[in-house]
Amino acid sequence: MAIAEIVESYNHYVKKIMDFNEAIALAEWDMRTGAPKKGISQRSEVVGTLSDEVFQRSTSDEMKAYIDALSDPSVQDQLSIVTKKMIEKSKKTYDRFVNIPAEENKAYVILQSEAQSVWQEAKVKSDFALLRPYLEKMVDFKRRFIGYWGVKENKYDALLDLYEPGLTTEMIDKVFGKLRKGLIPLVEAVSTSKAQPEKTFLTEPFPVDKQKEFCLHLLKEIGYDFEAGRLDETEHPFETTLNPGDVRVTTNYQENDFISTVLGTVHEGGHALYEQHISRELVGTPLCEGTSMGIHESQSLFFENFIGRSKAFWDCHFDELKRYGHGQFDRVSLDDFYRAINSAHPSFIRILADELTYPLHIMVRYDIEKALFNDDLQVKDLPGVWNKKMNEYLGITPTNDREGVLQDIHWPSGDFGYFPSYALGYVYAAQFRYTMSQDIPDFDDHVRTGNLQVVTEWLSKHIHQFGSLKKPLEILHDTTGEGPNPQYLLDYLADKYSDIYRL
Amino acid sequence: MAIAEIVESYNHYVKKIMDFNEAIALAEWDMRTGAPKKGISQRSEVVGTLSDEVFQRSTSDEMKAYIDALSDPSVQDQLSIVTKKMIEKSKKTYDRFVNIPAEENKAYVILQSEAQSVWQEAKVKSDFALLRPYLEKMVDFKRRFIGYWGVKENKYDALLDLYEPGLTTEMIDKVFGKLRKGLIPLVEAVSTSKAQPEKTFLTEPFPVDKQKEFCLHLLKEIGYDFEAGRLDETEHPFETTLNPGDVRVTTNYQENDFISTVLGTVHEGGHALYEQHISRELVGTPLCEGTSMGIHESQSLFFENFIGRSKAFWDCHFDELKRYGHGQFDRVSLDDFYRAINSAHPSFIRILADELTYPLHIMVRYDIEKALFNDDLQVKDLPGVWNKKMNEYLGITPTNDREGVLQDIHWPSGDFGYFPSYALGYVYAAQFRYTMSQDIPDFDDHVRTGNLQVVTEWLSKHIHQFGSLKKPLEILHDTTGEGPNPQYLLDYLADKYSDIYRL
Repeated sequence: MAIAEIVESYNHYVKKIMDFNEAIALAEWDMRTGAPKKGISQRSEVVGTLSDEVFQRSTSDEMKAYIDALSDPSVQDQLSIVTKKMIEKSKKTYDRFVNIPAEENKAYVILQSEAQSVWQEAKVKSDFALLRPYLEKMVDFKRRFIGYWGVKENKYDALLDLYEPGLTTEMIDKVFGKLRKGLIPLVEAVSTSKAQPEKTFLTEPFPVDKQKEFCLHLLKEIGYDFEAGRLDETEHPFETTLNPGDVRVTTNYQENDFISTVLGTVHEGGHALYEQHISRELVGTPLCEGTSMGIHESQSLFFENFIGRSKAFWDCHFDELKRYGHGQFDRVSLDDFYRAINSAHPSFIRILADELTYPLHIMVRYDIEKALFNDDLQVKDLPGVWNKKMNEYLGITPTNDREGVLQDIHWPSGDFGYFPSYALGYVYAAQFRYTMSQDIPDFDDHVRTGNLQVVTEWLSKHIHQFGSLKKPLEILHDTTGEGPNPQYLLDYLADKYSDIYRL
Repeated sequence: MAIAEIVESYNHYVKKIMDFNEAIALAEWDMRTGAPKKGISQRSEVVGTLSDEVFQRSTSDEMKAYIDALSDPSVQDQLSIVTKKMIEKSKKTYDRFVNIPAEENKAYVILQSEAQSVWQEAKVKSDFALLRPYLEKMVDFKRRFIGYWGVKENKYDALLDLYEPGLTTEMIDKVFGKLRKGLIPLVEAVSTSKAQPEKTFLTEPFPVDKQKEFCLHLLKEIGYDFEAGRLDETEHPFETTLNPGDVRVTTNYQENDFISTVLGTVHEGGHALYEQHISRELVGTPLCEGTSMGIHESQSLFFENFIGRSKAFWDCHFDELKRYGHGQFDRVSLDDFYRAINSAHPSFIRILADELTYPLHIMVRYDIEKALFNDDLQVKDLPGVWNKKMNEYLGITPTNDREGVLQDIHWPSGDFGYFPSYALGYVYAAQFRYTMSQDIPDFDDHVRTGNLQVVTEWLSKHIHQFGSLKKPLEILHDTTGEGPNPQYLLDYLADKYSDIYRL
């Protein structure tokens, strides 16, 4: 068969897998946004059937034949860059799954489901002992999987690669080390500053329907295309992509905490912009998604923090906010508002942490994950190590495991290696912010006058359009001229928080 | 392999097909209720991929092997009734599709899509000539399909069997003949009666949010389970079943026509009750759905007409309606309201027709379909025959094809044989109503006091629970002791309309 025919047949084969993935994404969106509860268990079986289909097709002999034929060095000059990258990704998925015995993978999936369920109970009871045996099994599974993948040296790198391809423990150690060294004294200075912002007006009741209107307005302002998406309400906000013409976001309205709702919505909007702007040429290929968790997070954090928590943004939108509110901001100045939404202090719960202390929460988890897989840290020792690290990095010690080691669902879900992407995304975002301000010297003026189009066009041109055509480090190098460098984030935070806390 | 093992394997195989069908139903619900428009074309491809998968699996060699093994007379005494009925249905689907050449089926599906699109244009322009070539091709396809199915005698019976298995032209001729003979003079008497109901208050503005609240309330009143369903808004109301724990309905709010909204919602609610009450033992089998279009329609029409347009129902709910309204019913008596919502007169558009004239609209279509397939009626002659029949049955003649032969999407969609089910369902519903009133002599009192539980329990016991375990005629015989008999409907209509129009 001619190469062009193999490529066509491969494209067709892969497109079907993508269609199944879209059906799965829709079923999951539906279950989270409003599917009636009595239909959920049968719906889960639908997701299981479709996932199994994706797994079978991704690891089939037919897939292997495509990979072999199109990886052959002799045919490379006949392939487009898109085909080459597609094959690379198909091969990665194939290799990742095909070496794991089917029975073992099935047992792993069942453990995931059980461990998540036990985790919820353990968290409520603040009882790590309940979760411990499940977590031990989970770590054992992961260690075995790494073995099946043939990794012997730096085992944790194999997990990082699942979420942030190309990044290594060596690189992250450097980035996090430098970041931590700069952050710890800054957090301390902020904590002990006498100039603490007043923020009681942030927790006054703000009617949910008005919050919703304001969120819809802000999503439009940042360029979210409602003809290619919709906003719904869920307990935990998320973004999900059905296809680039259907990128949905959700938020959670809290009457006494509107700013979390607003910035959470803008955060998900940032994820959504990435997906809405992926080149339509990539639809139906595995490249039609954000290239890594870290680059994705860089987009959401860019909008949440560098736009949504900036003075220029509220210069533009504070008067509007007042109109959506009911007088609670009448005696609040723009400066007071800006300081209030940026107040920072060490706290126990990652997802409620402010932008200053957030990276330190990640480092606690990174250190622990790395030691679990590369050194000989035991699961039983996690609560102790957690509390020790929290004290070391944030100067506070959890009083129980619910506000400590049990707070996140990632480990019971088997998602070891995921956490670093959150902080890396933040580092990337600061780098993008710096480069953008070089390219667009009047950046702040644009934000102040509501002209965010210039911002999204820049992001789209350098990042969004490529989907997974470029790896994270390629995006970073091509856009900023260097690898991950935490200095930009440190400079930004030092600048901003010196101002807010009058340091 | 032991029979029990084959059955288990077959069940597993069929369950996967049902899971794909659920994913398709969800994708279609989503496209109709709020999917962003830029994602629709890719979503349609997802539906295509999943439908293709269902088709492949339903006509596979593996399916044939199950059918052959489990249809063997020697194993029948080892099979449960559920397995026997499942195999019967799988075989019917298999036979229906496997004899149609794949290329021809594909061309048919493409024609369906084109013809529907052309139909919309033809309807807007009221120009039958535009649609005619597509309709001719559609009829040719259907005639060839009937040939592939090996049917030679009464070809239209083969189409009826798709929607109302067991019913034949011979039976329907008798039922419709008798019904028409009774209806035509009744319609005439009503049309010429001097006692025409006053109904201007029905078209006064009724705020949409209040209509919605009232619809939600009435759905609960008829027993719709919101933990196993939800109500959304669409241009055309429909009911769709994901699984019996997830049976969704939609409605369309019209500010100046609340009664259509309310009764339309109750109609869809009737469909939904059927599906919500199917025995959970049938989940994951092809029997887990209403047994025919006619029996389904009998349930929706039961609730729309025999409950929703009854005096007893409004005796219970008219005061509530007044509270949801804003004074427009203050000077309207219950009797006036009852007469207004039951006013009847010949009209052109089927979906807007009242319960008295509705069956005559169906008979126009039935006569035409039958002649197209059993006699030699040509597509080019449809507009003329349509107008002649309308005049004959309803005494009015459409002035253009938009309000005549072009009004329905069924024929451009290839759904010949579907229409009779609407009127048959109505006939069945009247029979169920009669039998129920024998079983529950104080039926009206229950409706009047809002105790509809006794009604839904009766329907559930005799009809709903069986899903497709029983054929339409079996349901009818087992429940009412006879076959389709239009006398009950005629008696009901004569009674009701003599009262309303003081005949």
